[in-house]
Amino acid sequence: MEKLKQRILEDGKALSGDILKVDSFLNHQLDPNLMMDIARAFAKQLVNKPINKIVTIEASGIAPAVMLGYVMQLPVVFVKKKFPKTMENMLVREVYSFTKDRVYTVSISHDFLTEDDHIVFIDDFLAYGNAARGIIDLCAQSGSTIEAMGFVIEKGFQGGGDALRAEGYEVISLAIVDSLENNEIKFR
Amino acid sequence: MEKLKQRILEDGKALSGDILKVDSFLNHQLDPNLMMDIARAFAKQLVNKPINKIVTIEASGIAPAVMLGYVMQLPVVFVKKKFPKTMENMLVREVYSFTKDRVYTVSISHDFLTEDDHIVFIDDFLAYGNAARGIIDLCAQSGSTIEAMGFVIEKGFQGGGDALRAEGYEVISLAIVDSLENNEIKFR
Repeated sequence: MEKLKQRILEDGKALSGDILKVDSFLNHQLDPNLMMDIARAFAKQLVNKPINKIVTIEASGIAPAVMLGYVMQLPVVFVKKKFPKTMENMLVREVYSFTKDRVYTVSISHDFLTEDDHIVFIDDFLAYGNAARGIIDLCAQSGSTIEAMGFVIEKGFQGGGDALRAEGYEVISLAIVDSLENNEIKFR
Repeated sequence: MEKLKQRILEDGKALSGDILKVDSFLNHQLDPNLMMDIARAFAKQLVNKPINKIVTIEASGIAPAVMLGYVMQLPVVFVKKKFPKTMENMLVREVYSFTKDRVYTVSISHDFLTEDDHIVFIDDFLAYGNAARGIIDLCAQSGSTIEAMGFVIEKGFQGGGDALRAEGYEVISLAIVDSLENNEIKFR
């Protein structure tokens, strides 16, 4: 997606070899028009798939996912990054974050993810793919089917996307960054 | 907002006297069309204010806020519910949650909230108003001006909204619930 790549080059910052800071338009401050453009770009690539629901993960996945829900006229469910205490009927899985070097829990209500669902998983970043692995497991627990996964930015050099593709998952990344070396952003 | 009230009556659940469960369309699963209707309802009431930015708080505030950003053509910043470790230039404040009986940290980058900003704060729920107090403090730290606060649902019986109004804040709540007693939802 050319507009996204331009924005990454203009406003993104490559830090310490493997961190891409995009908090002026994607991770902290959000540009709603860019979110809508991102949603339309995803929708274009999902048009022939029998998707009935969008699944994302809090917090930075929510903005592109809700815009995609609006464009595709589909409900959105966001996976919570916490252990459910008071909620019933929850599916739960632990995920290890390489980026933050810690384990966190992801959870989703089985009420909103069932064997009838054919989903696309949307997230802001794909790095090592561990969050995506958590979602794959939650979907397996629920009996739902993953039709595709869409990421705003894939850090190609961290390998998560290529591993998922090799396993047969349809992975749509709107911008694939293959290197951040010498503070320079290089796309695939 | 009539459509929202109808949806709360149809799909919301009053639990144990003070909890209103709306996770089928606002807190966990999201209805993007309802989010857009909510955004338009907020925008209508904000039309004469000199607002240049929308501030919300992760995670459930993001969906209505990004839709409002799209409708009003304004950037959105979401306050993070964590202590910033690696981020620089952060404004930080502790908030006590009555609902969850715990203290959490809210933070926002001073890069995205400055003395030039005139903001509307958007959140899904207004209960005791402690999250709103945290935002008021972050805005004071940044030198920015709060033009209004918009909430999808206000739990009127918990008093946060009336206290804020008494202090002169413009509080826009699209549905005010005044009682959940006997598992019955009563609007103001």
